[in-house]
Amino acid sequence: VYSHEPPGYVCPFCNLDAAGQLPGNVYRGERASAFISNRWWPNNRGHVLIVPNAHHENLYDLPAEDGYAVFDLTQKLARAMREVYGCDGVSTRQHNEPAGDQHVWHFHQHLFPRYRGDRLYESAPIEGSAPAEELARYAEILRAALAAV
Amino acid sequence: VYSHEPPGYVCPFCNLDAAGQLPGNVYRGERASAFISNRWWPNNRGHVLIVPNAHHENLYDLPAEDGYAVFDLTQKLARAMREVYGCDGVSTRQHNEPAGDQHVWHFHQHLFPRYRGDRLYESAPIEGSAPAEELARYAEILRAALAAV
Repeated sequence: VYSHEPPGYVCPFCNLDAAGQLPGNVYRGERASAFISNRWWPNNRGHVLIVPNAHHENLYDLPAEDGYAVFDLTQKLARAMREVYGCDGVSTRQHNEPAGDQHVWHFHQHLFPRYRGDRLYESAPIEGSAPAEELARYAEILRAALAAV
Repeated sequence: VYSHEPPGYVCPFCNLDAAGQLPGNVYRGERASAFISNRWWPNNRGHVLIVPNAHHENLYDLPAEDGYAVFDLTQKLARAMREVYGCDGVSTRQHNEPAGDQHVWHFHQHLFPRYRGDRLYESAPIEGSAPAEELARYAEILRAALAAV
């Protein structure tokens, strides 16, 4: 129900390597994984996407166990991000269907570092993909923070 | 850690009656509850807040069982909202700390009905509280949809 995935869709979040997301890989768990998004907002660089490993398009049909794994990983990363990004807060968002701003047809939760006056909601994302070395730099910082917890 | 709740804070989400939120009451569960927010965005009226019943300020410290209950209830309401609001999608957001746009010091997840071209992120909320009869109307629609599932 309410599916927008076209026939033959090659899912970028099931094929992180092909999609050039691997440099930003932060964590691979049994049910959920996290990586630095390669689509950046100007004042909130290095934000994280948390996804179920299994392919599910959106919130309506996500199995509970996957939803719980996404929650656990989001919380862990929220704590880690708050410690090591130098941000003043964090926020999440999760989009369903084109009218809900969804662009990739695999459930994903955004976790943003927040800074005073960052105007996240009024900003447009930066065009193009963030550079691989920048993805790798943020991923490395977060991985180290996770390991230290 | 990272707490912004002032001493003697009277929590509006622990005192929904006093806060005038009760007309919008949608669901009271063992661990999590939902009600229509009385703060409305112009093109996304009747959005829902999902909260743990226990008082926890933010995502960093939310117990896992409460996080799971919030997920379960958010998903149920997302399906119900999609069925009965006539919207074209839904999205969630969750804010932590003042820099992250948090204004009430009790963890809450927003669930928004989304419509094509609604410009949710570029819109400012409507000043003042939504009228009690409007809160009650949306709550009634959602309660009926939940009961029908």
